[in-house]
Amino acid sequence: MRKGERTRSRIIQKSSGLFNRHGYLSSSISDVMKETGLEKGGIYRHFANKEELVLQAFEYSTQVMNKHFQEVLARECTSIEKLEAVIQILKGLVEDHPIPGGCPLMNAALEADDAYPILAEKTRDSMARLLEMMKQILVTGVEKGEFQKNMNPEQMAVTWIASLEGGLALSRLYRDSTYMDIVAAHLLNDIASYQ
Amino acid sequence: MRKGERTRSRIIQKSSGLFNRHGYLSSSISDVMKETGLEKGGIYRHFANKEELVLQAFEYSTQVMNKHFQEVLARECTSIEKLEAVIQILKGLVEDHPIPGGCPLMNAALEADDAYPILAEKTRDSMARLLEMMKQILVTGVEKGEFQKNMNPEQMAVTWIASLEGGLALSRLYRDSTYMDIVAAHLLNDIASYQ
Repeated sequence: MRKGERTRSRIIQKSSGLFNRHGYLSSSISDVMKETGLEKGGIYRHFANKEELVLQAFEYSTQVMNKHFQEVLARECTSIEKLEAVIQILKGLVEDHPIPGGCPLMNAALEADDAYPILAEKTRDSMARLLEMMKQILVTGVEKGEFQKNMNPEQMAVTWIASLEGGLALSRLYRDSTYMDIVAAHLLNDIASYQ
Repeated sequence: MRKGERTRSRIIQKSSGLFNRHGYLSSSISDVMKETGLEKGGIYRHFANKEELVLQAFEYSTQVMNKHFQEVLARECTSIEKLEAVIQILKGLVEDHPIPGGCPLMNAALEADDAYPILAEKTRDSMARLLEMMKQILVTGVEKGEFQKNMNPEQMAVTWIASLEGGLALSRLYRDSTYMDIVAAHLLNDIASYQ
């Protein structure tokens, strides 16, 4: 990788953490300068404007999460194990793992829904992929006979993601993973009724 | 009400909508000036700094929501009717009713958890009151024999609020109330198993 590309990658990486913690709109280029230790010119050499950096940083956050999901889920065999792994991954975000600031999709969703149409569009695409991934775990579970056929994978995927994301928001607000644990126990208890 | 107090109230009211839509941190005093049609001096005559305005505006949003909850819930008799009313109230927020920009508690929670300790503290207090209100509806339901005694009101309250807030975020992101409907149907189906 050439030096220019390395610098560009480092700016994206540092900014992704900053934006996920402190907001895409409310973080300024001065904040990016502090986070990266670069001058303004050193940042704008690599990005046409703040928006390009914002979208690249969001993309980077979702890539880190996607890779983390793929690696963790690959280790699990059954659908129920994969669902438990999804819970653990989202629970990791309470403690800033693998990225700081909570779930990038929810952070971007709540910030962008009214105020940032291009980021909202990117967030809709990424959220759709997360919902589809959940649905596929559930569809496979039905196909393999792990879950009864009367379970609706599409609706169950929405319920799981909405509930876990809401639980994550509560757990991050109170710095207490109990909220996520309560939501997760409820979801696992519910899915057991289809086993 | 004196003229100064009326102006102060109007600034708080207009700012609460602005902050709930566009963020407490990312909205600037210039944005408040545009929203209110006042000069900077006309705003700072009433508030020591932006932080005082932010906290007052958040307080106003939660008061509007509390009043709305009280009015709607007072009309309902049974606990299950009250739970259905809570669903309808949160569903109203998909369409900016009674305030624009979605749930002020979730907006503030996601924005403040990493970046704004004083707002996070206020949000924790308000969220605790919402959770307590939900718990009381469920406790009363158990006491009156509407729900079986093996239901845990505290955990159920967390599950309901987390799931509905997550569903609301999805519905606002996609401008589609289907997500909330799916989550609500799941919760009502679940609570029915305790009836």
